[in-house]
Formats: sequence, structure tokens, C-alpha cells
Amino acid sequence: MGMAHYLGIDLGGTNIKAGVVDAAGGLLAQAICPTPSTGFDDVVAALVKATDEVVALAGLRRDQIRAAGIGSPGLVDATRGVVRDAPNLPGFREAPLGPAMATRFGCPVFVENDANAAAFGEYWAGVGRRKADEPAVRDLILLTLGTGVGGGLVSDGRLLRGGHGMGGEIGHMIVFPDGRLCGCGQYGCLEAHASAVAMVAMAAEATARGESTVLATADGGPMTAKRIFEASAAGDAAARRIVTQAADALGLACISLSRILDPQMIALGGGVAAAGDELLQQVRASYRRRDWRLAGSAPVRIELAVLGNTAGMVGAGSIACNACGP
Amino acid sequence: MGMAHYLGIDLGGTNIKAGVVDAAGGLLAQAICPTPSTGFDDVVAALVKATDEVVALAGLRRDQIRAAGIGSPGLVDATRGVVRDAPNLPGFREAPLGPAMATRFGCPVFVENDANAAAFGEYWAGVGRRKADEPAVRDLILLTLGTGVGGGLVSDGRLLRGGHGMGGEIGHMIVFPDGRLCGCGQYGCLEAHASAVAMVAMAAEATARGESTVLATADGGPMTAKRIFEASAAGDAAARRIVTQAADALGLACISLSRILDPQMIALGGGVAAAGDELLQQVRASYRRRDWRLAGSAPVRIELAVLGNTAGMVGAGSIACNACGP
Repeated sequence: MGMAHYLGIDLGGTNIKAGVVDAAGGLLAQAICPTPSTGFDDVVAALVKATDEVVALAGLRRDQIRAAGIGSPGLVDATRGVVRDAPNLPGFREAPLGPAMATRFGCPVFVENDANAAAFGEYWAGVGRRKADEPAVRDLILLTLGTGVGGGLVSDGRLLRGGHGMGGEIGHMIVFPDGRLCGCGQYGCLEAHASAVAMVAMAAEATARGESTVLATADGGPMTAKRIFEASAAGDAAARRIVTQAADALGLACISLSRILDPQMIALGGGVAAAGDELLQQVRASYRRRDWRLAGSAPVRIELAVLGNTAGMVGAGSIACNACGP
Repeated sequence: MGMAHYLGIDLGGTNIKAGVVDAAGGLLAQAICPTPSTGFDDVVAALVKATDEVVALAGLRRDQIRAAGIGSPGLVDATRGVVRDAPNLPGFREAPLGPAMATRFGCPVFVENDANAAAFGEYWAGVGRRKADEPAVRDLILLTLGTGVGGGLVSDGRLLRGGHGMGGEIGHMIVFPDGRLCGCGQYGCLEAHASAVAMVAMAAEATARGESTVLATADGGPMTAKRIFEASAAGDAAARRIVTQAADALGLACISLSRILDPQMIALGGGVAAAGDELLQQVRASYRRRDWRLAGSAPVRIELAVLGNTAGMVGAGSIACNACGP
């Protein structure tokens, strides 16, 4: 008898990513297909097709899959496997995704919020994975920096879902009470200061104010967080200020998260984090500058996430493995 | 065979409080004695004596106690029952409190940080206790407002201890990044804006600035948070400003805590909260004013804690009950 295998599915508003993982979260095969926008039944059919494909790609039969995990956007009731509401998935309201897929797959199916799945992936198989010479990380926070700022919390090896399934909305903790207006209606959210959208908005404001900055030129195409990081690295003052204040917001958030949750590790993932080392170093510097001065308090490790855009898929498979035992 | 009984012990720097609780966290008897300052062995002896007394008070024999819980100050390794470091308890460094008491008591003993124990008490037997007509609260945060600001987190019915046993240091989340210097070395901690010590310091600053305020008179004796609340209720402008900014700091903290942890309830306890309803109403108003505007998001309930200074004792007993089953 071989090692057990698990399906990990990242159900996004645009694409479905399906993977086969082993008990260590290692990715054996993956497949991707567009997400139908025509309702629940068509999504279920697409999931069946994508997983048929990836199981075959891995050289396995369906009956060799022990369990499946699905990361879904929106509000998920993980206990029942129901997607309660997902604005990016037409027709997903109180959608019984877990039960429907369990019937099709013939194995247990676990449904989680996609940000939670990604956090579990980094914990189980990514940057939080145990290395031979280090103590195990049991408490990890993933901050996903992209268009918005998302996140997921693993506490003592368990996902922290919250009392209404809305835990881990880290992008909407308030870091600057007098700060920028966020799309959610609050002022000073982490997302309003450290997301790609916020950074691009700050660049537009700098050029509108007539600041002398390379961000004002259209040479680099449409404004992106990546362009801002590049301009900052090249010494542009306005770009540096934007990066610095995003990093400061993140460092502040890491302090409060550490005081509240005391994780061993905070991982920075998503497209903005992929921009590279400069942001990581600045976040660490902001954290150190603002950190308390208590003797003997154990430091948190702030690291870049390592799974990239496979985190949700790998995490979903790892959740299935963790729930069923290896 | 009667209902099972549990010992709950609140080991403080000044006093030992010992109680007998039932499976619902109901307090059947309690005893209090001073905490010896002469080291671990003397504290163990005092705990044996206090619990002998309270067991007899409850009309029970030792062998009718099913398990015991102890809330201890400082850094606790709950897995091993060891108090790693407790500055308020001389001789408590790597102190094997759980194993030592289990030998004396002849039953399982669970050791927790005292703030965690109080949070679990409010969850199990206090303001979070299930009422017949309400859904069960499984996620509760206790904020303890006193000399400092402490707290404890219950998530899905479990205490959240953190990766190094230092979770729940809610008083040191940063609410105002440009705010007041905290004793821990950080700027803008919740504790630096909402603790009794902070409020008294703000009153001293107001009088030093020569503001016209009743806080400047010595009539009421030494300055206390209670006097500030009374002056605020009587319309004193400086006192109102101090209460309002403490409440605003608390409301801000409740927003961020709700986004991160999504609790069903946040309970305000400790001496400052006991000052009454004015603070509660202002915290709720600050929360509502700063809260996001997302349709369908479930509200958190912000309530006053109800167990007063029995929370730690009741919580310790409830932890023992929860760990052993009813």
C-alpha cells in the first residue's frame, strides 16, 4: 500500500485549480480550468472534470484519493461544507458544495475559506513546515498582499475561523485611526495602506499634487505596485515614501497580531510580497522599531511565504489530510 | 452519585482564592488567604491548606473533587503545568506547580495563565454562558481593565495561548501609533490609553496644564479612575475627554479584534469596567462609529463581564471541568 493522496482544490472567481498532494503537502500534479459563471451545477461539473484530469495526471485512480479539500471565496460554513455567500461565484448562496462533491468524489470533502486554506498550506507545507533543525511552528499567520489584504490564522495547528466564519479579516484591522478611507467604510484599515490598490492610489495622489516623481510618467504603462517598488529601489522619493508607509502599516499590524495571538511566524504572501526582499526588510525594521522591550519575550519570525499561487490548492489538500489523518 | 465537583484556584501575588465549583461553574464555597512570599514550597503548603478548608466548607471530602484548575500570574506552560516565570511570585521560575499539586490533591491539576482563566470563566459560567433563548457563544474575548489592561481569548471553546504562551496580551496591541508611551516600551498601546494608570496620568497632565477641572482639587483624595468617571458623569470637561478617549481606544481595539478573531462577544471586566455603564455605552458608540459597513456582517456583542473578582477562580475550576468532562 502506497502513501495516501489528497485532492486540493482552489475554487476562484476566475479559475479552478486542482491538485493532488501527498501527506506532506507535496504537489504531485495540477490542472487549471476556467470557473463557469453559470451557477452551482456547472461549477460542480467543472470540478469533477478538473479533478478527473488531475487524478489521471498523477497516475492514480479515483479510489486512491482518500479525501478532498476545497478553498472557496466568500463566507464558508466549514462544519457543514456550505458556501454561505460568495459574491465572485454567481449562484453560490447557501451552496452545499461539500456534500455535493462528496457524492461525486466518493470520499470526504472539506470546504474552507480560500484565505484560510492558503494559510494552512503555508503552515503545513510551506514556510511554516518543520525543518530538521528548528522547533515546529504551530502558530502561523499568513498576510496575503494583493489587490486587497487578506489573511488566515493557524493557532496551535488549527484554523481559527471565528464565531461567524469571518475570522482572519486582517486587512480590516485598523492600524492608523486617522488614516485612509477603506472600501469597507472604516478609516485606517491595513488594506487601505498596504494593498496594491492603496499604493497605486497614493501614487496617483503624489502625481496629482505635482510631485517630481518617475511615477508621473506613463513610460512604464499603467501604474502598479510593482512599478512603485521598482521606482523606490531606484531612489524615487515619492515611491520610497509609499513603500515605507505600506511597510510601516504592515509592521504595526504584525506588532498587534503578535501581542494578541503570539504566533511563532508571520508569513507575507500574495503579489505585493512577491515584489521582493525590500518590503520584507522594511516590515521587519518597522516591527523592530515599534516592538516592546520586554526581556525574555520570544520574537516572531516575519518571512516571505513560499507557495505562491499554489498555496490555496496545497492548503486545501493539506486540510483534507490533517482532518483524516495521514 | 452526585454532580462532579472541581477546585478552582486563583493564585495571585497578594492572595490565594480557592473555590469549589460545579460542572456549570457555579461557586459552592470559597476561601481566601494571603500568598506566602517565601517561595514555592510555602505556596504549595498554603494551597493545600486553603483547599482543605474550602472542600470542608462545601461539605465535601477530597475524594469527591474530580480535578483542579489553577490560574497563575506570569508565563505558564499549560501543557506541562509549569509556571515558567512569574515576577509577582518569588521563587517561581520553571516552577512545577501542576505536578506538585496533583501529588497533593490526588486528582488531575490544570495550570493556566490567570487572565486566560478569567476569560474562560466568563465564557463558561459568566456573561458568555448560554441562555435558553440565545445561540451559544463559542468565541469570547475578555478585556480586563484595571491598573493595566489584560485579556484572554476563547476561540471555538478553546483558550488561545499562542506559540510561546504569551497570547492574549491585548493591552499591548497598538491602537494609536502616535499615542502615549507605554510601560512596555511601545507607543500607543491600548493599556497606555485605557488603563486606570493611564487615565490617572492624563488627569495629572490636565491639572499640570492648568485646566479648569474638578480633578485639580484634592477633595476626593488621591486620583483614581473612579474619581475621573464620577467627574465625567458630573459634566467636568477634562474628565469627559479622558473617559471619551479611553472608550475610543477600547472601541478601536474591539474593531480590530473583531476583524481578526470574529468573536460573538467581547466582555469588559476589571475595576475600570466596574465603574459602570457610562464606559460601556461609550465603547459601544466608538465601535459603531468606526465599524465597517458590510451588509450581512454579524455584529459582535460588547457587554460588561459579570463574575467580578471571582472570574479567575471560577474560570480555573471550569477549565478543570472542561478538560475532564462533566
